[in-house]
Amino acid sequence: MNASVTYDDIASAAERIAGAAHRTPVATSRLLDAACGNRMFLKCENLQRVGAFKFRGAYNAVSRLSAEQRAAGVITHSSGNHAQALALVCQILGVHATIVMPQDAPPQKLAATRDYGAEVVIYDPQVATREAISHELAEQHGYVLVPPYDHPHIIAGQGTAAKELIEDAGELDYLFVPCGGGGLLSGCAVAAKYLSPGCKVIGVEPAAGDDATRSFKTGVLCTVHNPDTIADGARTPYLGQVTFPLVQQYVDDMMTVSDDDLIRAMHFIWTRLKLVVEPTGVLGLAAVFNHRHPVEGKRVGVILSGGNADVVKAGEWFRKVEG
Amino acid sequence: MNASVTYDDIASAAERIAGAAHRTPVATSRLLDAACGNRMFLKCENLQRVGAFKFRGAYNAVSRLSAEQRAAGVITHSSGNHAQALALVCQILGVHATIVMPQDAPPQKLAATRDYGAEVVIYDPQVATREAISHELAEQHGYVLVPPYDHPHIIAGQGTAAKELIEDAGELDYLFVPCGGGGLLSGCAVAAKYLSPGCKVIGVEPAAGDDATRSFKTGVLCTVHNPDTIADGARTPYLGQVTFPLVQQYVDDMMTVSDDDLIRAMHFIWTRLKLVVEPTGVLGLAAVFNHRHPVEGKRVGVILSGGNADVVKAGEWFRKVEG
Repeated sequence: MNASVTYDDIASAAERIAGAAHRTPVATSRLLDAACGNRMFLKCENLQRVGAFKFRGAYNAVSRLSAEQRAAGVITHSSGNHAQALALVCQILGVHATIVMPQDAPPQKLAATRDYGAEVVIYDPQVATREAISHELAEQHGYVLVPPYDHPHIIAGQGTAAKELIEDAGELDYLFVPCGGGGLLSGCAVAAKYLSPGCKVIGVEPAAGDDATRSFKTGVLCTVHNPDTIADGARTPYLGQVTFPLVQQYVDDMMTVSDDDLIRAMHFIWTRLKLVVEPTGVLGLAAVFNHRHPVEGKRVGVILSGGNADVVKAGEWFRKVEG
Repeated sequence: MNASVTYDDIASAAERIAGAAHRTPVATSRLLDAACGNRMFLKCENLQRVGAFKFRGAYNAVSRLSAEQRAAGVITHSSGNHAQALALVCQILGVHATIVMPQDAPPQKLAATRDYGAEVVIYDPQVATREAISHELAEQHGYVLVPPYDHPHIIAGQGTAAKELIEDAGELDYLFVPCGGGGLLSGCAVAAKYLSPGCKVIGVEPAAGDDATRSFKTGVLCTVHNPDTIADGARTPYLGQVTFPLVQQYVDDMMTVSDDDLIRAMHFIWTRLKLVVEPTGVLGLAAVFNHRHPVEGKRVGVILSGGNADVVKAGEWFRKVEG
C-alpha cells in the first residue's frame, strides 16, 4: 500500500461512502457574512452520522478490508468521535469491533459506543497504555487495527468532506480546517488543491495544543501531551507519519486560536445559525470569526467538523460571553 | 377582506414569500425514528430567517400593503419572534416599523429588534397596556397595525410552512404543531387538510397555558394570563377571532405537554440532531418524543417553530436531564 494520498484516492472514497455517509449540507448565513466580512461556506459535519466527519474515514477504511480481515474483526483505541464512528460502521457492515477506552471516559461515551454494538475494553491509564492493550488484543485475536487518523484510507475518507464542499459551494479562496492528528486537514488539503487550485488551506489548532503548528513551521515533528483546551478532539499529541508529510506538502499555513475564541464562535453559531457544533468543530470558524487571519471579501470555506458538544458545559461557557 | 383563510390564500402567500423567506429543510433522523417508534419529518423553522416561522406571515402581510400604507409605516406590540420578524421584513421592504416592547424585555431582544432598523417604543406595563399604546401611536401617525397572529395574511403566511413540509416529505398521517395564538396552527391545518386530506392535525400547548385546548374542547374561548412555562412563545392568553374558528374547523385535536417533556425533547434534538430549537419550538416534537399521543408506525410531521433559545438557561435545564 502506498502510504500517501492522492485526489484519486479521495474520489474513490467518495464512491465507496456514497449512500452510507450523509452528504451534509453547506450552510450560509447573511449574519455570519456580515460578522466576518466575507462570504462563508460552512460544511456541516456536525450533521454527519455519529455527529462528526469521522464516519467518512472509518467507513472507507473498514469497507476496504478483505473478507478474511472483516471476519477477524477490527480494533481501535479512542474515547472520542472515532470510537463511535468505527462502532457504527462495523454495525452497518457486520464486522466485530473492539474499542479500547480509558476507565475515566465519560459514561455517555461508553454507553453510546456500546449502543452501536461494539465491544468496549476498559483499561487503567495508570497501569497500561492504550496502544499496548490494542496491540496485545490485535495479536491475540487477529483484529485489524483501524487507527483514528494516520492511515491513507482514513485520510482519503475525511478528504471527501472538502470535495463535497467545493462541489456544492464552488471554488474557494480559503479553506479553514480543524487540526488534531491531521487526518481531516491533510485529506481536505489534497481535495482542495485539486478541485480549487488557488484555494489556500489553513489548519487551525487550539493554542494550548500547538504541536502541528510548530511542526509545520519548523519542519520537525513536535509533541504536546494532554494540552489544557476545551477542544478535546484536537488534544492529539502529534501529527502522524502519513499526515505530517501531507500537511507539509498541501497545507499553506497553520495557526492557533484561544479557547475564548472558540467559545465566542460557538455562541454565535448556536444562537444565530441554530447549529450545535463542538469546540473542536469550530476551530476553523473561530479563526475567521475572531478576525485572526485576514480574509476580508474572500470566499471562505470552513469545515465544522463535529457536533458532539457537552450542552451543560456549553451553557456555562456561554454565560461568560453574555456577561 | 374575508376574515378567514383558504388553501388558495396559502398558495398565494407561498408565491409572495418565495426568494425572501428560506425554504427550510425537512430533517429526518434514524435515531429519532427509533426513539419515537415511527417516521418523523421535522420542518426546521428554527433555520428560518430571524430563527422562527414568524418571518413568513410578516412578509406576506407587509408585502400586501398598498403604497400608501407602506409609506405610513407599520406598528406591532411584541417582545418575541414576531417583533424581530416584522423589523427585518420592514428593513427588506423599506417600510418604517415601530415595535412596542415592555421595559422589562430582555436587552438582547431590544438590541436585535433595533439592529434590524426598527424604532422600539418602550412602555411600562404597570402604567399602560401595549394595546393602548399601539393604538394611540397608530392613530397619531397613521401606522398600520400588523398583529402577531390574528390576521388572515399572517395565518396564510404561516401555513406555507406545512405546505412546504408536505411537498418535501409526502403525505403524512399526523402533523403536530405548536400553538400560542393559533396563527401557525390554523394556517398549517388549512394547508395540511388540502395537501394531505387524511392527515390528522394536532395542536400542542404547554400544560400551564392550556387555554386553546380548553377552548377547542368546550367550544368557548378560554383565557390563561401569563402562564408559568418555559415555552415563552406560547404564553399568548387566548386564540384569536380569526384563528379560533379555523382551529375548530381544521384541527383534529389539541393537547398539552409539560415543561419537563419540552426539556427532554430539546435535549435530544440538541445533542443528537445538533439543532438548537427553543422550548416553544419543540411543543409538537415533545408530544411524540414523550409518547403522549399514540402514533406508532405512522408518518408524522412536526413543525419545529423556532430556535431563539436562551443557551445559558438551556444548559441549566439539561443538567437535570443528564442527572
